[in-house]
Amino acid sequence: MTEFDPKDMEYRFLGNTGLRVSCLSYGGWLTVGEDSEKVTKACFEAAWSRGVNFFDTAEIYSNGECEVVFGNVLKSLGWTRSDYVISTKLYFGFGEKSPNGRGLSRKHLIEGLEKSLKRLQLDYVDVIFAHRPDREGVPMEEVVRAFTQMITDGKALYWGTSEWSAFEIEHAHHIATKFGLIAPIAEQPEYNALKRDRFEAEYKPLYDLYKYGTTIWSPLAGGILTGKYSEGFGPGTRYGDQSSPVVAGIRKRWETPEGQAKIEKVRKLSKIAEKLGCTTAQLSLAFLLKNKNVSTILTGSSRAEQVYENLDALKVYRQLTDADIEEIEKILDNKPNYNALF
Amino acid sequence: MTEFDPKDMEYRFLGNTGLRVSCLSYGGWLTVGEDSEKVTKACFEAAWSRGVNFFDTAEIYSNGECEVVFGNVLKSLGWTRSDYVISTKLYFGFGEKSPNGRGLSRKHLIEGLEKSLKRLQLDYVDVIFAHRPDREGVPMEEVVRAFTQMITDGKALYWGTSEWSAFEIEHAHHIATKFGLIAPIAEQPEYNALKRDRFEAEYKPLYDLYKYGTTIWSPLAGGILTGKYSEGFGPGTRYGDQSSPVVAGIRKRWETPEGQAKIEKVRKLSKIAEKLGCTTAQLSLAFLLKNKNVSTILTGSSRAEQVYENLDALKVYRQLTDADIEEIEKILDNKPNYNALF
Amino acid sequence: MTEFDPKDMEYRFLGNTGLRVSCLSYGGWLTVGEDSEKVTKACFEAAWSRGVNFFDTAEIYSNGECEVVFGNVLKSLGWTRSDYVISTKLYFGFGEKSPNGRGLSRKHLIEGLEKSLKRLQLDYVDVIFAHRPDREGVPMEEVVRAFTQMITDGKALYWGTSEWSAFEIEHAHHIATKFGLIAPIAEQPEYNALKRDRFEAEYKPLYDLYKYGTTIWSPLAGGILTGKYSEGFGPGTRYGDQSSPVVAGIRKRWETPEGQAKIEKVRKLSKIAEKLGCTTAQLSLAFLLKNKNVSTILTGSSRAEQVYENLDALKVYRQLTDADIEEIEKILDNKPNYNALF
Amino acid sequence: MTEFDPKDMEYRFLGNTGLRVSCLSYGGWLTVGEDSEKVTKACFEAAWSRGVNFFDTAEIYSNGECEVVFGNVLKSLGWTRSDYVISTKLYFGFGEKSPNGRGLSRKHLIEGLEKSLKRLQLDYVDVIFAHRPDREGVPMEEVVRAFTQMITDGKALYWGTSEWSAFEIEHAHHIATKFGLIAPIAEQPEYNALKRDRFEAEYKPLYDLYKYGTTIWSPLAGGILTGKYSEGFGPGTRYGDQSSPVVAGIRKRWETPEGQAKIEKVRKLSKIAEKLGCTTAQLSLAFLLKNKNVSTILTGSSRAEQVYENLDALKVYRQLTDADIEEIEKILDNKPNYNALF
Repeated sequence: MTEFDPKDMEYRFLGNTGLRVSCLSYGGWLTVGEDSEKVTKACFEAAWSRGVNFFDTAEIYSNGECEVVFGNVLKSLGWTRSDYVISTKLYFGFGEKSPNGRGLSRKHLIEGLEKSLKRLQLDYVDVIFAHRPDREGVPMEEVVRAFTQMITDGKALYWGTSEWSAFEIEHAHHIATKFGLIAPIAEQPEYNALKRDRFEAEYKPLYDLYKYGTTIWSPLAGGILTGKYSEGFGPGTRYGDQSSPVVAGIRKRWETPEGQAKIEKVRKLSKIAEKLGCTTAQLSLAFLLKNKNVSTILTGSSRAEQVYENLDALKVYRQLTDADIEEIEKILDNKPNYNALF
Repeated sequence: MTEFDPKDMEYRFLGNTGLRVSCLSYGGWLTVGEDSEKVTKACFEAAWSRGVNFFDTAEIYSNGECEVVFGNVLKSLGWTRSDYVISTKLYFGFGEKSPNGRGLSRKHLIEGLEKSLKRLQLDYVDVIFAHRPDREGVPMEEVVRAFTQMITDGKALYWGTSEWSAFEIEHAHHIATKFGLIAPIAEQPEYNALKRDRFEAEYKPLYDLYKYGTTIWSPLAGGILTGKYSEGFGPGTRYGDQSSPVVAGIRKRWETPEGQAKIEKVRKLSKIAEKLGCTTAQLSLAFLLKNKNVSTILTGSSRAEQVYENLDALKVYRQLTDADIEEIEKILDNKPNYNALF
Repeated sequence: MTEFDPKDMEYRFLGNTGLRVSCLSYGGWLTVGEDSEKVTKACFEAAWSRGVNFFDTAEIYSNGECEVVFGNVLKSLGWTRSDYVISTKLYFGFGEKSPNGRGLSRKHLIEGLEKSLKRLQLDYVDVIFAHRPDREGVPMEEVVRAFTQMITDGKALYWGTSEWSAFEIEHAHHIATKFGLIAPIAEQPEYNALKRDRFEAEYKPLYDLYKYGTTIWSPLAGGILTGKYSEGFGPGTRYGDQSSPVVAGIRKRWETPEGQAKIEKVRKLSKIAEKLGCTTAQLSLAFLLKNKNVSTILTGSSRAEQVYENLDALKVYRQLTDADIEEIEKILDNKPNYNALF
Repeated sequence: MTEFDPKDMEYRFLGNTGLRVSCLSYGGWLTVGEDSEKVTKACFEAAWSRGVNFFDTAEIYSNGECEVVFGNVLKSLGWTRSDYVISTKLYFGFGEKSPNGRGLSRKHLIEGLEKSLKRLQLDYVDVIFAHRPDREGVPMEEVVRAFTQMITDGKALYWGTSEWSAFEIEHAHHIATKFGLIAPIAEQPEYNALKRDRFEAEYKPLYDLYKYGTTIWSPLAGGILTGKYSEGFGPGTRYGDQSSPVVAGIRKRWETPEGQAKIEKVRKLSKIAEKLGCTTAQLSLAFLLKNKNVSTILTGSSRAEQVYENLDALKVYRQLTDADIEEIEKILDNKPNYNALF
């Protein structure tokens, strides 16, 4: 059995709580294929051996399959429940035609968590996230009440938000205050060196007011910040598939002048990475870790080696000087400003 | 297995919640006879095939038998629990001589729900209604506390009222505010084209203040709005039974000048229905659906064909023009006005 | 100077407060003519000599003139402020074209009381009433906040409602609970032997829940309960004026079958009055005084003799036996029932 | 004396209150010159004669001079205080070097209002606005407490915000809930046909949750929507001044491709205006009035004729058909969408 080794890891509180999560963690959104359990188990073990204690999934990932895999892997690994932190996310349901099969109604939340726990073979998750805000008319009181009940029922220890506006998060806090309910403690936002406005500006008052936690997704901008696509989306690359209209759509966005300007920035980052002796991906992760409002970065991998490579970003983060940061900021030239945005 | 098909249905939020209910739904109050399970199953399947997702019963219906039948039918149909919405109602008990066998005491509510769930073979209902207000001296705090506990115990997702005055519903909200409890979200009122004061006037502030939901019963005024009794209560009709004193009482009320004036209105509605190519019942249901404060109309049927006929009211509702509504209003001549009533 | 003599008066608490008001009191709504100050002063003195301590007016009465007269009379009488209780009522404004010149907006309430106090030459009134509910969209929070501020500013000791529905009064209590504001303590309702539903049934829960106080207006149904119109609205009587369309409207209402049935009841009451050796008006007032939910009855008079006559209703009230009440109830045959109404 | 004539005006509630304001109103931000009192008085009288009852100023406008002029004009006009609604705005102070001379500290708010009231020669304003959010570290509790005190002190009836983010407004509501304080009721935002995101999208939840009121400034985008600059910023026009660097900055912004695209839209609007027989300015105001979340539009004028011209936008607004709006929307092509922005 792989040993859990925290000595090279940095742990951060997940928001204004006592829950400590490794600043780099494992996210399970990657498509699950044939060998999914074997692959996932290998990744879990690699992460575990370097002190990663936080694992994130969602009901929607592979329509529940990802939770099933996580559950089986955790069972076969036999780790002590108190040693790891696991979260899942509710909102999308998967494929039901039923009008109550998705969204943040009390019905979907209460029923959805029950199903997720069954798939995960767990009595509770540490954090349950609302995977999206529900903007179709569901009142916030309903949402906050349902998450509070999950916590008082012992089926989750905390609840969080994902891709909510700062307004919505503040409104949830307001409702929690108003009715004596439990407020969310963390957001799972998209954040990376090329997309910073929401995380650094819109959410800023949340860090000041609530020490709001964050579990970052898409830290590499869908791979663009690996530098692999700096020379184009050739065949064989992730975005090389000429037949998929979804992939074509993404490719098209990067091919606009704005997209190209961003890729040019990545090219320059790659030069800094080279100078520092690390990969562009590692540099990109290290840059995010420098932000104290990042609680943890979710990294996805389908191979143990990739897990190790991602985790080595910690070393880069520890080396990065103020001068390096300044240089990166100069290249990115996208530091957001609250007053300019609001 | 019958497929659930939502494509022709309209779903509405049940009050200020995220719970979506089909605007036409199935109510199980009809006397349950010999073939009750077979009949009910056929009706459930017919409704389901047209996207009906809401089914309502009560402890008092056939003294618990209706809940038993619902439970058996749901079990044999094998629908996914999250796909349908089910409610029951507590107040009347059935036949117990015990002083605590009915009413809204904490004792009857907590014990009554337990029994209903057993009969329904369910872990929880979606909505639990207080079938009547308890005006014998039970304080509102007791009532709101008991319903709040059902919800926090996971035995119901929401609670509602039935045949309460607007004052009583507001008082329940007041008590919920005062003690940090959970307020009711919907009323199950009697409402039809011939009886509009309470629904449209007395309850009006509840829609404005709380977006209070409604699950309508008696949408056809006990069948009068089918037009079947416009030529009298002949033998063979529902109200033709000359031996029953209850039936005689109802017949008598329709035979007063006020009753006859209403039947005259029904005759005129039948002419509009004929012009529109629908039944008087369908027109009556369609007229109610036009009111946005109607969340769902409970229709009772003892034959699948009748279910389909009722559901076809949706088509009529979609065709009804403002001019049609104006013509109907002119015939009914009973649009209520809050200021005149209070 | 007339001496205040409480010995024959009965004082009742005005709602759930410590404020004691004479159960018969003086209302100033009568049209104020040339000698208004002289006449009003004589009435005040007559009332005062029999222990009446409560005097009621409103901004709308004679467009502010009534308050001016009350102010001048009180000044000239030189009574000690703590010995009498005075109330006024805001809502109608008078004649301004300004959109904020009436209603229950904070603006009209705050500004309106300021003007009323100036006209009354007082620093504060004991009770300030909302003369009507504002149903044009003014939120209750606004209304309760404004009245609370009047009280905390020392410009009124209590606030009340007039012609509000029980729902609206309960909603005001809810809002007061919700925001920690001050709830109203009394209603000024129309109530008399011929009009009982609202007072005795609709308001019943308010007495049980809040010991809500009442200051009755129209205790004689616009004079009908004096018995003077039992033989018709002949020339010279209050409703004899053949030229006024308003008077004609009122006359017409009494000439319907329903109106005539009521007048027939008055005729029968007159016979009981005769038997008891009192006037029909005195009997009518005495009947109301028997209801413990009546805090005080406002009686209007334009002559001192009439004041004395009204106050003698107290003697009748003290004599009335249960058998008398039963006889009256039999004649009236209009005892309301909450369950039948709601 | 000019008569107040409300008959052609439309009044709207200012947020969730009972305060009614004319939907077109008068804002006093224009630079006050030599004849300022005479000019302002003429504008006030013109507005008044057409039913305008709302007048807005700010401490910063001409460094207090605007408030002085408003005060003198109101005094000389002798209008009844309850007939008009007046607001002022605090934040900027004017020219003080003192560290507490501006911002939303309790000190500046309490002291600032005192000074404004003196300049206005009034005991209270109807609405006091925070002219900007204070983002330098002033906690919201301080701000909400200070405004609450102004209201309970009787120096303002309501308070509002200006140019706050939706987040900040929600946070103010949260703080008001938390501490039992008074929440703001309206925002004074920049809003016009060329700048719609904040008003229509960011603020949308505020309308739904709080019926938040709005008093629009810059409805004509600094004059661009008059169409006067569609052919350039020639000498003699407002933006023609070649010597002022401020004016040059504004001119520059309109000369960018984005600016030019907007001016092209204005040209097309002018054609619709021509077709409808009104000015481009009137059409632009009418378009805003169609939005029910607009409580009132502040229009600035330095001549009575211009006041009349602006007020004639009401006629255009009443004529605008759905087809006209559709045509305008097609030209503008900037209808905002919450989900796209947040």
